[in-house]
Amino acid sequence: MSTTYTVGRYLVDRLGELGIRHIFGVPGDYNLSFLDTIIEHPGLEWVGNCNELNAAYAADGYARIHGIAALVTTFGVGELSAVNGIAGSRAEQVPVVKITGSPASKIAEEGRLVHHTLGDGSFDHFSKMYKEVTAAQTTLTGANAMEEIDRVLRICWYEKAPVYINLPVDIHALPAKQPTEPLLKEEPLAPINSINQMLETLIPVIEKAKSPVILADYQVSRFHAEGALKKLAEATGFPIATLSMGKGVFNEEHPQFIGVYSGKTSSDYLRNRVDNADCILSVGVRLTDSITSGFSQGFTDNSIIHISPEGVNYREIKFSNLSMEETLNQLAGGLKKRDAQSLNIIPVTMQQKEEPFYVAEDHTLTQKRFWEMVRLFIQKNDVVIADQGTSFFGAQSVPLKENVTYVGQPLWGSIGYTLPATLGTQLADLSRRNILLIGDGAFQLTFQEISTMLRENLHPIIFVINNDGYTVERSIHGPEAPYNDIKMWRYADIPSVLGGYRNFKSYKTTTEGELADALKDMAQSQDVLRFVEVVTQKMDMPELLTVLGKIFAAQND
Amino acid sequence: MSTTYTVGRYLVDRLGELGIRHIFGVPGDYNLSFLDTIIEHPGLEWVGNCNELNAAYAADGYARIHGIAALVTTFGVGELSAVNGIAGSRAEQVPVVKITGSPASKIAEEGRLVHHTLGDGSFDHFSKMYKEVTAAQTTLTGANAMEEIDRVLRICWYEKAPVYINLPVDIHALPAKQPTEPLLKEEPLAPINSINQMLETLIPVIEKAKSPVILADYQVSRFHAEGALKKLAEATGFPIATLSMGKGVFNEEHPQFIGVYSGKTSSDYLRNRVDNADCILSVGVRLTDSITSGFSQGFTDNSIIHISPEGVNYREIKFSNLSMEETLNQLAGGLKKRDAQSLNIIPVTMQQKEEPFYVAEDHTLTQKRFWEMVRLFIQKNDVVIADQGTSFFGAQSVPLKENVTYVGQPLWGSIGYTLPATLGTQLADLSRRNILLIGDGAFQLTFQEISTMLRENLHPIIFVINNDGYTVERSIHGPEAPYNDIKMWRYADIPSVLGGYRNFKSYKTTTEGELADALKDMAQSQDVLRFVEVVTQKMDMPELLTVLGKIFAAQND
Repeated sequence: MSTTYTVGRYLVDRLGELGIRHIFGVPGDYNLSFLDTIIEHPGLEWVGNCNELNAAYAADGYARIHGIAALVTTFGVGELSAVNGIAGSRAEQVPVVKITGSPASKIAEEGRLVHHTLGDGSFDHFSKMYKEVTAAQTTLTGANAMEEIDRVLRICWYEKAPVYINLPVDIHALPAKQPTEPLLKEEPLAPINSINQMLETLIPVIEKAKSPVILADYQVSRFHAEGALKKLAEATGFPIATLSMGKGVFNEEHPQFIGVYSGKTSSDYLRNRVDNADCILSVGVRLTDSITSGFSQGFTDNSIIHISPEGVNYREIKFSNLSMEETLNQLAGGLKKRDAQSLNIIPVTMQQKEEPFYVAEDHTLTQKRFWEMVRLFIQKNDVVIADQGTSFFGAQSVPLKENVTYVGQPLWGSIGYTLPATLGTQLADLSRRNILLIGDGAFQLTFQEISTMLRENLHPIIFVINNDGYTVERSIHGPEAPYNDIKMWRYADIPSVLGGYRNFKSYKTTTEGELADALKDMAQSQDVLRFVEVVTQKMDMPELLTVLGKIFAAQND
Repeated sequence: MSTTYTVGRYLVDRLGELGIRHIFGVPGDYNLSFLDTIIEHPGLEWVGNCNELNAAYAADGYARIHGIAALVTTFGVGELSAVNGIAGSRAEQVPVVKITGSPASKIAEEGRLVHHTLGDGSFDHFSKMYKEVTAAQTTLTGANAMEEIDRVLRICWYEKAPVYINLPVDIHALPAKQPTEPLLKEEPLAPINSINQMLETLIPVIEKAKSPVILADYQVSRFHAEGALKKLAEATGFPIATLSMGKGVFNEEHPQFIGVYSGKTSSDYLRNRVDNADCILSVGVRLTDSITSGFSQGFTDNSIIHISPEGVNYREIKFSNLSMEETLNQLAGGLKKRDAQSLNIIPVTMQQKEEPFYVAEDHTLTQKRFWEMVRLFIQKNDVVIADQGTSFFGAQSVPLKENVTYVGQPLWGSIGYTLPATLGTQLADLSRRNILLIGDGAFQLTFQEISTMLRENLHPIIFVINNDGYTVERSIHGPEAPYNDIKMWRYADIPSVLGGYRNFKSYKTTTEGELADALKDMAQSQDVLRFVEVVTQKMDMPELLTVLGKIFAAQND
């Protein structure tokens, strides 16, 4: 091990300071010697992935649970394979540090025709591409390395956005000084004046409202404001709904939780309660097509108080420099509590009378029955990861117990994302049970990362819904078209072929009885990875997807 | 089927006119209705891939054999997954048409927060990214579609470079006119004056040379000048070498072929013959690090006549507007033939005395013996595809019989490229036997495309060299480092798990006897896909790779 303190060591120390314990990626000759710094670091583990896109997905999943993540690839080939994953992190505001090991500075300056370049002597094509999908970029040099590392890592952390670090192979080994100041400063308190002005303006508006509601979305989770959101909800007694992208930011069994709002596909009660609210406290919300059933929300901007990471907006009035957490806490302190009756709250738990569920042993599995069984299977504190297809729209209707984290990607919507993401979410917290729900079409894109889960001896539960093709696409266009067909695989045999040996258990289920047996078996212990193939019919799809398919088709006309 | 002639139909008709018979890709809601146009087209077949990167690799392979290829993905998620493949086509000059199905023009104009965007209202991030790795880009509109399609397809064809077509989902269905003029014009003949000037200048230089040599590379193949190259070689009698990127552009059993030149790692005879030549007719060559053992060529620019697709250069003199083919033909007509003796030609076939090969039945397989057995197995007219690792450097030393096409990616060097590329090369010409050589590390990145080969009922021969990790990286840095380890899979079982049934045969070989039996079995017929796992030792690597690893490590210092 080298005894000199280096630029590479500075970088990994800063990553460790942000809480990162695992670094994802794929080796390549331009990053190999930097990888030595990672594997020699006492606080870090290198997690090699099967390919770079999977590494980026894994890092994204890790960051969603752990707060931040990093991955290393090589120049050109590696970083371009990863770029779709990083773009997803950008769209969905996930802080990921993308490090590219690149050719030596001298080689780049001379514009030599080395491998992993386009052969045109230009070495900045790929960093330009990353500029489109990251919040900050840097190419490290001997002169700027420490300053630039700190600059981009701060942007990553505070803006919750991916950043790009180009690390030439000769730079990481240059000497550096150990950091003396912490990377992150205490966040400055907002000026008392701003807070008071905000409270003086908004409290009367909210107090005057007859049917206020809180509408929360994913930014609450990204900016770690779940606690403050709960405080506001409980201080006011207001009913609270989330959007599906933010599903799980508020306990769905809470007596004030009224459902996952999705525009015109919401239940009648939920739709009326939200659309006709005379004051909507909108917390960390971005209204996109997938989560509003094609922009079908019925409320108008006039009634919304927008609470975002950048500040608070109400009609023409703006208060900046207020963090979401601080705004929520201040409002919680200033508002009076109202009683549930006056607010017309029907909690989700009361909306559907839960019928006792009897397994019909020999009945072929249907989507409807599958999701009912999943609902009963998910427990407190689970992490549920649902791929953007049948799985996401099926899982959306499952009410989640306390402290369940829900991971999906409804804005970016890259199919296959969730399987490698589950490698990340599980590594981020080994103490929580991870449940992946993914369709066969999505599974085929990225499934090799099961190999890495087995190598790392992780124990997630993977449900592969085998409905013979791209069902989410069938719902939109071409239900019987050959382009929505995929090859039928022997799914249940995959963990064993990818190197599983005594550290997994696999099930193939086609009837309710078989699935019930598998679920029962899995509930016993969590000692191995579980893989469950769930066979359903080709055109059997969750109700929400049927409606949404038509809406998306119309949007494309 | 629609009876109106549409923009989409115009595009696919033009692709058909260029000889394209298969279109690769992955469906997505922004391209589904355009895919209808493809599947309804009588001359085209849709080949759905497991993921978009694989689709781009398959298209690249198809284009290398077939002359040009096309793929379709969806916006954002799909096109970014494919971009590494397209960058490879750019680096290695392969004409591929990348079509993106994107959101409706109105949605983009209004900057709506729809899925597969970054959610920032901007719809041009990804086309900007493609600008870095394609030779031309266009966003089709009702007004420009036909003109723009023709413009970018011509650039793709003539420049042998990928191009990018953004096709909004509402545009492809707009009415269009059938093309009345052919897409490609007869290439204009070079002005007689230029030709004469070129001949008057160069013929004396070449005739005066005492030890001329022809050095040919991959552009000969991309610009379809193999015939003219052969004509020049035979008209002059000059010795001819290729670089490894252009391996196979000249028959390696020809009495004038003296070897694959690779700088200081070449054999002594070859190195001296090329480095000390007083006139090098360099045809379609780009000298990059991987193919020159780190720029170790010993000749100087002074002795080179550069014949490229753009024209001819000799010292300070340039002749433009001369196609490579025309230059070769003209020189062939103007030069006199010399005899082999005076030119000091030792053909490759005479350089190594071929010892009779006896199989040592129980001997564990070594790299050395494996490549000797492969050498005997490869036949005339085969297509040999070698991944950029152990396989490429091993295969480089195998002399190829007549009409063997060799496919590798030494400049871009994206590991895992060749497996999906083989789907493309095989579909491009079903009559030729395709042999893929790939290491286990590379295989794990992209192997799901075997599923598509099985679905399409293709019969390539796939050798997976299982040496337990990233051996090409071990040769450069960290031979025992954990980041060069990968999970051991049950490779030979993969075709069956990925849906193979009676249309494949699988072999696992660890001894010379087992491999010999498999080769013998495969030589019998070509009725099914063959999958051969070849187990070798971790640190056993082709000789060339050992040397090259050290050279690359030094380049990174």
